Amino acid sequence: MPLKTRDEYLESLRRMKKRIFMFGEEIKNFVDHPMIRPSINACAMTYELSHQPEYDEWMTAVSSLTGKRINRFTHLHQGTEDLIKKVKMQRLLGQKTGCCFQRCVGFDGFNAVDSVTFEIDQELGTDYNQRFRAYLRYIQENDLVVDGAMTDPKGNRRLSPSEQADPDMFVHMVGRRTNGIVIRGAKVHQTGAINSHEILVMPTLSLGELNKDYAVSFAIPADAEGVLYIYGRQSSDTRKLEGGAIDIGNPNFGGHEAVIIFNDVFVPWEKVFMCGEFKYSGLLVERFAGYHRQSYGGCKVGVGDVLIGAAQAIAKYQGLEKISHIKEKIIDMIHLNETLYACGIACSAEGKPTASGTYLIDLMLANVCKLNVTKFPYEIARLAQDIAGGLLVTMPSEKDFSHLEVGPYLNKYLKGVDTYSTECRQRILRLIENLTLGSGAVGYLTESMHGAGSPQAQRIMLGRLANLEYKEKLAKEIACIEEK
Amino acid sequence: MPLKTRDEYLESLRRMKKRIFMFGEEIKNFVDHPMIRPSINACAMTYELSHQPEYDEWMTAVSSLTGKRINRFTHLHQGTEDLIKKVKMQRLLGQKTGCCFQRCVGFDGFNAVDSVTFEIDQELGTDYNQRFRAYLRYIQENDLVVDGAMTDPKGNRRLSPSEQADPDMFVHMVGRRTNGIVIRGAKVHQTGAINSHEILVMPTLSLGELNKDYAVSFAIPADAEGVLYIYGRQSSDTRKLEGGAIDIGNPNFGGHEAVIIFNDVFVPWEKVFMCGEFKYSGLLVERFAGYHRQSYGGCKVGVGDVLIGAAQAIAKYQGLEKISHIKEKIIDMIHLNETLYACGIACSAEGKPTASGTYLIDLMLANVCKLNVTKFPYEIARLAQDIAGGLLVTMPSEKDFSHLEVGPYLNKYLKGVDTYSTECRQRILRLIENLTLGSGAVGYLTESMHGAGSPQAQRIMLGRLANLEYKEKLAKEIACIEEK
Amino acid sequence: MPLKTRDEYLESLRRMKKRIFMFGEEIKNFVDHPMIRPSINACAMTYELSHQPEYDEWMTAVSSLTGKRINRFTHLHQGTEDLIKKVKMQRLLGQKTGCCFQRCVGFDGFNAVDSVTFEIDQELGTDYNQRFRAYLRYIQENDLVVDGAMTDPKGNRRLSPSEQADPDMFVHMVGRRTNGIVIRGAKVHQTGAINSHEILVMPTLSLGELNKDYAVSFAIPADAEGVLYIYGRQSSDTRKLEGGAIDIGNPNFGGHEAVIIFNDVFVPWEKVFMCGEFKYSGLLVERFAGYHRQSYGGCKVGVGDVLIGAAQAIAKYQGLEKISHIKEKIIDMIHLNETLYACGIACSAEGKPTASGTYLIDLMLANVCKLNVTKFPYEIARLAQDIAGGLLVTMPSEKDFSHLEVGPYLNKYLKGVDTYSTECRQRILRLIENLTLGSGAVGYLTESMHGAGSPQAQRIMLGRLANLEYKEKLAKEIACIEEK
Amino acid sequence: MPLKTRDEYLESLRRMKKRIFMFGEEIKNFVDHPMIRPSINACAMTYELSHQPEYDEWMTAVSSLTGKRINRFTHLHQGTEDLIKKVKMQRLLGQKTGCCFQRCVGFDGFNAVDSVTFEIDQELGTDYNQRFRAYLRYIQENDLVVDGAMTDPKGNRRLSPSEQADPDMFVHMVGRRTNGIVIRGAKVHQTGAINSHEILVMPTLSLGELNKDYAVSFAIPADAEGVLYIYGRQSSDTRKLEGGAIDIGNPNFGGHEAVIIFNDVFVPWEKVFMCGEFKYSGLLVERFAGYHRQSYGGCKVGVGDVLIGAAQAIAKYQGLEKISHIKEKIIDMIHLNETLYACGIACSAEGKPTASGTYLIDLMLANVCKLNVTKFPYEIARLAQDIAGGLLVTMPSEKDFSHLEVGPYLNKYLKGVDTYSTECRQRILRLIENLTLGSGAVGYLTESMHGAGSPQAQRIMLGRLANLEYKEKLAKEIACIEEK
Repeated sequence: MPLKTRDEYLESLRRMKKRIFMFGEEIKNFVDHPMIRPSINACAMTYELSHQPEYDEWMTAVSSLTGKRINRFTHLHQGTEDLIKKVKMQRLLGQKTGCCFQRCVGFDGFNAVDSVTFEIDQELGTDYNQRFRAYLRYIQENDLVVDGAMTDPKGNRRLSPSEQADPDMFVHMVGRRTNGIVIRGAKVHQTGAINSHEILVMPTLSLGELNKDYAVSFAIPADAEGVLYIYGRQSSDTRKLEGGAIDIGNPNFGGHEAVIIFNDVFVPWEKVFMCGEFKYSGLLVERFAGYHRQSYGGCKVGVGDVLIGAAQAIAKYQGLEKISHIKEKIIDMIHLNETLYACGIACSAEGKPTASGTYLIDLMLANVCKLNVTKFPYEIARLAQDIAGGLLVTMPSEKDFSHLEVGPYLNKYLKGVDTYSTECRQRILRLIENLTLGSGAVGYLTESMHGAGSPQAQRIMLGRLANLEYKEKLAKEIACIEEK
Repeated sequence: MPLKTRDEYLESLRRMKKRIFMFGEEIKNFVDHPMIRPSINACAMTYELSHQPEYDEWMTAVSSLTGKRINRFTHLHQGTEDLIKKVKMQRLLGQKTGCCFQRCVGFDGFNAVDSVTFEIDQELGTDYNQRFRAYLRYIQENDLVVDGAMTDPKGNRRLSPSEQADPDMFVHMVGRRTNGIVIRGAKVHQTGAINSHEILVMPTLSLGELNKDYAVSFAIPADAEGVLYIYGRQSSDTRKLEGGAIDIGNPNFGGHEAVIIFNDVFVPWEKVFMCGEFKYSGLLVERFAGYHRQSYGGCKVGVGDVLIGAAQAIAKYQGLEKISHIKEKIIDMIHLNETLYACGIACSAEGKPTASGTYLIDLMLANVCKLNVTKFPYEIARLAQDIAGGLLVTMPSEKDFSHLEVGPYLNKYLKGVDTYSTECRQRILRLIENLTLGSGAVGYLTESMHGAGSPQAQRIMLGRLANLEYKEKLAKEIACIEEK
Repeated sequence: MPLKTRDEYLESLRRMKKRIFMFGEEIKNFVDHPMIRPSINACAMTYELSHQPEYDEWMTAVSSLTGKRINRFTHLHQGTEDLIKKVKMQRLLGQKTGCCFQRCVGFDGFNAVDSVTFEIDQELGTDYNQRFRAYLRYIQENDLVVDGAMTDPKGNRRLSPSEQADPDMFVHMVGRRTNGIVIRGAKVHQTGAINSHEILVMPTLSLGELNKDYAVSFAIPADAEGVLYIYGRQSSDTRKLEGGAIDIGNPNFGGHEAVIIFNDVFVPWEKVFMCGEFKYSGLLVERFAGYHRQSYGGCKVGVGDVLIGAAQAIAKYQGLEKISHIKEKIIDMIHLNETLYACGIACSAEGKPTASGTYLIDLMLANVCKLNVTKFPYEIARLAQDIAGGLLVTMPSEKDFSHLEVGPYLNKYLKGVDTYSTECRQRILRLIENLTLGSGAVGYLTESMHGAGSPQAQRIMLGRLANLEYKEKLAKEIACIEEK
Repeated sequence: MPLKTRDEYLESLRRMKKRIFMFGEEIKNFVDHPMIRPSINACAMTYELSHQPEYDEWMTAVSSLTGKRINRFTHLHQGTEDLIKKVKMQRLLGQKTGCCFQRCVGFDGFNAVDSVTFEIDQELGTDYNQRFRAYLRYIQENDLVVDGAMTDPKGNRRLSPSEQADPDMFVHMVGRRTNGIVIRGAKVHQTGAINSHEILVMPTLSLGELNKDYAVSFAIPADAEGVLYIYGRQSSDTRKLEGGAIDIGNPNFGGHEAVIIFNDVFVPWEKVFMCGEFKYSGLLVERFAGYHRQSYGGCKVGVGDVLIGAAQAIAKYQGLEKISHIKEKIIDMIHLNETLYACGIACSAEGKPTASGTYLIDLMLANVCKLNVTKFPYEIARLAQDIAGGLLVTMPSEKDFSHLEVGPYLNKYLKGVDTYSTECRQRILRLIENLTLGSGAVGYLTESMHGAGSPQAQRIMLGRLANLEYKEKLAKEIACIEEK
């Protein structure tokens, strides 16, 4: 059966020969590295829950390619129900991990590449979609995690790829052989890269003919020759190395991003899905981004649920849960969080089939969703800090709480309502700190801002999709205006 | 066929013997009264579009009671598709009228009364649902407009109905006869009351045993004996009486509210749908309000489209449509408007069947929808005023523009870009004025605030529906907290 | 003594021969016209309070030109204390009238023209400042109201004055004689124009050499030959003509704007203060706008006080003043209103002397002030509507309340807490309606948006005044960055 | 001369015998400890700048007690000019350190204790003010840093001090001797505690007679017997221990908070400033909080300047500084930051003398200031993250940049505009990370929320100080309402 267990997933990672660098050193056993493991745990939750019957409907699907039950993360959406279930699955995983679980980028990449390659083939007579579906069948059968790699370093933002001082600032083809192509460049902000079995590369922007060699999409094993990973730092990241269990905030789960270097990597033709068809690069970006903007209406909402729950818990620990302004702030948090969810659901319910049969979300509403995601989690986090109180950022380290001389003082003085232990309060404050200032804030806040495209990208889409001419016409009809 | 035409609707209104008061006088021919006619026109649009094939799918439905094609405004929702189509129909009508078209309250009332009476019957063995469905069949067959009457005057807001100094501050039963009951009280803010054929009365709040006689729901013809209407004033309302066509802003359409007095009105048993079952009054309010909070995710979005279109038009007339800050403001308006729409769609897509088979929206998301509606139209209106410029509120009357001496000066000096006539600019500014300060603002702004319940009512629902215990549990699991 | 009384002011207006048009007719006795009188009453309050000892310190000042006690509205600011007193006087007048009292524009014009003419003279050897001060002495001695006229119609906003299809879209000099100049054009949005004795004209934007003839500043009597006024419409304006005392909302006070046509008007040299010195037009606009952006930190705050008071009153009338969410909303209103006041005070306290000795506000903070004014009153108004409830926009006319048949019903059913009369509730709701949707909203909202320049104008100033290079340097020092 | 140099300050700290705990260990040489030193550097800047002539006016003052030139941080405000200079000094120091410089709490404590003790003496005939001024003279002469210690742990927030399960949850007198009193309890969130020479203790809330023993104010040397310090953790705090110079973000400066334990500490009478006069505890809290709420209108604005500068720099490094949406976001940041400054200036300009002669800020405006501070820095930080881009949270460690194999790749691929080094970009991103997610965010965000009292405390003050009765009266006068 294609559904891997958590342990099988961990084992499969151990078998990989990735070259990973962190803090100036190459990491050997990355699966058990304390900095990385929480991130692997989060991704492993996508396997674990797929075996729990109560989540079956959301976590798994019947493959449109093979008819077998597969992990939903490897599925092509066959209807609006699938799109809605995707969002619910993401909310669930956000709730269970309190962080980014890193398997959506590849998932969104599959669905985007599928419909775009189908349309390229229709117009140009190529066979990219057939190649891609063969590849995806392999992914589904083996229940693999795929890093969807889109964002290039970009250098000077006002210059196109070929105008850059360094031509490698965007991933591009630097050689063409009978059996495949050679690739150079880098992808940045690669969420979950270390935890992945494969990398699915896509271009990062709409391209013109001059930038033809940058219009490449392909897949490679994550440990292919010439691929290097450099682990990204996060706020408070090294708390994971301190050996404690409290100050870390979210002891078991976390996310990560990495820089991936493609050092003249060879890709065989059967895994090349676009190669020079520059006219379709914009479409691929738009669809991928659309799916990923939908995703945030699920995953960030799940993390929001955790933060709301944490705020409610700290209010209780401090004796404030019935105070009206606290209750109103909790309601504000709920309101913002559920508005995001509404956007995630709405763009899914309004999905439509593409030519390939794979369903696409409503692009306008998906962009609306993401634009709200660039703001509301920040306000939810602010409200959580308001409820939490200043101890959030002034509490001594957990080691001080167990120090012989000062530990007893801390346990005495930092107690809230006396029916709860000081440690309960410590733990929940550290979780709120994690989500609003620490490693968790990277995923919950900054990634909400820039993941799936920075806010201005969504605004531009809104302007393009709004059909202003039609709205103008409506206004003129009502005002009885006839322009000459 | 049950689908009335616009003209049949107007004729049917003319046949009614309503007693209507306005500006200290009783109105005789209300259908042709210039203050009232725009409001009737707006409601008539619900008939007109039901005959246009391109809108068929949204404007009509197949009755679950008779199998005939009926106006959707008289339909019981049979699935989430119906709920979504309702929202799309409402957006369409908002776009076509630029105002409240006043037929949703009854529509939402039908669906709420249907499922609640079914549940009363199930538990208490009454036959309310059968009565109600017979009544609704009559409405569907005759394609009638029904005023859904919920809001009582309320007097001192801190006192329950029976605690009020005057026991009539909430509608109540003051007599019980063999063939029916006698009713006294008033309903305020009655949107579309004058344009309706029938009134469907519901209680306005959750009631206890002491307030049993206030737990009444029933229907009466809108011109029943003992019923009086007093027309509500709106900002700039008398511009409709000035005889011009420009300063009125929206020359053909408008909305209205009225106070309805029930002066010991008799209701026969077959049209009584609740009579003393106080435990269900809260449920009826909650469901009705839920449907109506969904509605605003459609109708106000349609009006928002008109206002966005007007803002875009005035920008062009003034030569500003390509200026970046103007474009960003238009995008802000779109973003807010589409977020409302997303909420309307989402609560519909997440609808579930009630015991009666009639579908109910997702209550959490419907309340989220309405809570956003209490804010976003105000911000959209503010942005429209920003783009419009000060002339919006300083432009002389249309009569001055045709005055022999000063008219030419106004036409000369108040011209914008010279390819558009000054009158185009005048008209679009007056439309924006209408929607942000005038009669249209009553529906677009203040009704968005208070219609279907003031914002605090939605906030209370959010707090109740949020399942905070579950969210707390999520947070504690992630923080590894075990309370003792 | 220079301080006119209220009655002397009214009499002085009656003596003027202004040509005023409204609703397609020329108005003869404008002082007693029911549409105009509330506006004159508001301006008259600036005279009335100047005779009340408790307000002496704010309402009057000792002239720097004559040493006599004068109305502060004719004063040149001699220090930061004067600037702060100006703001306090404006808040007081907003509180006493609940509207725009229309005497600030001239006041701000005096102070701007004084320092700029002084600087022109210094550089070019002209004698404008001497002329201007002679003129101002006359104003002070006769305690006159002066309309500061800046805003031109502008036509196509992307074109400069001389590029317009019609060269008259900006006021300009069309003839030069030995004894003076001839002027043509129009000024729009002229607040208080009808109530003024004089008009002080200034250019509306920064000008280049090609637009030299548009760089004119001068004064004329408000009834000079060739000057026409066309009265601007406001939301709900004709309620003033209905003869009632309640639905009007603010029965005694109001504001107005007018279009002024300059139909080849002659100006003698002694009242010309700029004539072709185009390089100084931008400076004059910047200073005038700066003073006027300060003003809004006073007057709008006073009106805000009235609206907050009205919200508190309606909460009491409805029995809600102790409910926590109502109290929090009142606090939100106070917070926003006092933030505006803080900005008004701050830009005054940070004022500095110009070369002429007249004090100028801090331009950065004055622009910050106005930019907040373009948003906060809208939010205060929204909160007031939230507290007021829907009756704000659905209440029947006052005539219905005294109708024999339905009046008693309205008085019965629209009562709130029974210790207050229904009329109290009616009146306060009408005041809130006036300030949030009616004539008062024109001044409190839309004028807050566009008066003294639309928000983008303030944003541009913020960008210019922010000294970003210095801030960058600070950041680089802290980050220990040395660029090569 | 009383003005210590930076080095004298460092030396004076070295001479102290404080007991400080961190990460489960007692710290011996705290002055040179890499975790603590940046915080001492920030405080040392208050000495350094006091010797720089260009800042003389702001950094120093002439003592009202001795007539000597002293560091302004030890001054009693003698007029509104002093209050304004305080705010300017704080902005300057925020600009120079990019963090909290930790000397304001004591400063604000001096001014509050001075006027309150004066008033206690006036009413009760005590000699507290004389004692306090003698103490302050000593502080001024020796140019000492004093930790103003107000916030108690509070335990269950709904219970008063004496109702708590543990009576020590608020600092209280546990013994009274002929020569002084004995104190037990703790103070939390003690900003700059480690860097201080003295501690000035004040009660944290308004107290009734039952809590008389909690109404104590006094001073002690910071290394008095029985005093323990436990250092608070901050987000990313241990980056200071990594030995690098880039990832730390703000390499030289930082802030800290500590828990202070008072383990039966003896205080001689001459340093006791309140002892049981419970009626004045609320007044002392209100005044101290008022001054400290003013402070945030200076210091946080200075840090905001740094963050705005950093945002502008990263925009340049990435080639985006001329893009209109980036410029608008920078303007938004400026607008928010200068609004805070306006509030700081306004409450100072409106200051009034207390009975002791020491000037007090305007309490309403100071509370308005702080309430804005609880929101705007969060929005400024969000905008900075928007401009910075995702690299802010995904950039590898500085060690990776100098690694032999991957360093060259990082330097190649993470370059922006090629005229700036990759290191410039790294440094500025790390500074933005520091201020929005790291140690700096503790001071710039969470401390802005809770320092000087959480937002609800300011809201309560706004409600109390608003004089709603007067505003109601204004509204009723304008609406011509006469209640019977």
